Amino acid sequence: MSLAPWRSPLSRALHRNRSLPNARYLQLATIGSDGKPANRTVVFRGFLEDSDRLKFVTDARSEKAGQIDRHPWGEICWYFPKTREQFRISGRLTLVRADSADPSLHKARQIAWQELSDAARQQFAWPHPGAPRADAEAFQPPPPDPAEPLSHFCLLLLEPERVDFLELRGDPQNRCLYRLEGDRVWVSQGVNP
Amino acid sequence: MSLAPWRSPLSRALHRNRSLPNARYLQLATIGSDGKPANRTVVFRGFLEDSDRLKFVTDARSEKAGQIDRHPWGEICWYFPKTREQFRISGRLTLVRADSADPSLHKARQIAWQELSDAARQQFAWPHPGAPRADAEAFQPPPPDPAEPLSHFCLLLLEPERVDFLELRGDPQNRCLYRLEGDRVWVSQGVNP
Repeated sequence: MSLAPWRSPLSRALHRNRSLPNARYLQLATIGSDGKPANRTVVFRGFLEDSDRLKFVTDARSEKAGQIDRHPWGEICWYFPKTREQFRISGRLTLVRADSADPSLHKARQIAWQELSDAARQQFAWPHPGAPRADAEAFQPPPPDPAEPLSHFCLLLLEPERVDFLELRGDPQNRCLYRLEGDRVWVSQGVNP
Repeated sequence: MSLAPWRSPLSRALHRNRSLPNARYLQLATIGSDGKPANRTVVFRGFLEDSDRLKFVTDARSEKAGQIDRHPWGEICWYFPKTREQFRISGRLTLVRADSADPSLHKARQIAWQELSDAARQQFAWPHPGAPRADAEAFQPPPPDPAEPLSHFCLLLLEPERVDFLELRGDPQNRCLYRLEGDRVWVSQGVNP
């Protein structure tokens, strides 16, 4: 398949900001169980093979997993400090749990687990996120199997339908909207910042 | 009035990250007119005098102004790269427009305008945000009066009711939830990251 037209400026931004450890950190907005917006930092884990779907990982015990079950839509806001570029990407969210019936997503979840660092995998063995603080020993569990994901490990996918790209450095700034039209074709338009 | 208990770690984070130009940039999530989450970078403009309300500025012509009218609630996600701390702050949003009937908010809006840089003020004289790209000349308007805000300039206030503070550097990480209880008292609790 051909890549979406916003992939090229995004790749360039990732490349030009690669010296910053937080260039792969972005903020994901979802809708909470109370109908109010929720927002937190997540780490970009690359694109799902042969697709424009962005990969993240999360814990099925976290609040956002329940939010996504109820309202599978999100918008990420990704700001690149060095080049002063912002990508707002909205689309459908898919949570790939241990019981995923789709063999290719099941496999992708396993690969995402294997690609984590030991420290990142270890966090999935920590006590329930958001529960009252557990004793220190609870945070020293035996290291989980690097080959087989823990049951509450989830791969999270964002399938973009709209991208709003803003370059703050231009004078005036440049802004481009990309929209996925009904026939799965991306249409882009320069708009006022 | 006494400051909320999360003000002290937030001040510390702002101080320790002050060398980064983007330490005052954060992401504001709201709910779009289609009921889907929206998310964008905004600039922290300090606290409203004698209060815990965070100040931002925005353009009444932007999408988020309409979103806030319909659903005056938001969550900001504020990540500090140098100290690896995250503050998630949710609360009620108030848009202070030119016709605000509250004299103190009317005054606060005027001060916020006066405190902007010339370049930031100029942007409010640009053509309609999000409309098809205008000609270059439209971005060279006469400089607006630095004393009197343009009509579509808005002060935006966030009145926090819940703060989720995460320190990624701890081993294990530290996380503290602050909640405003019914009697306007802040209650805090250490929780699992």
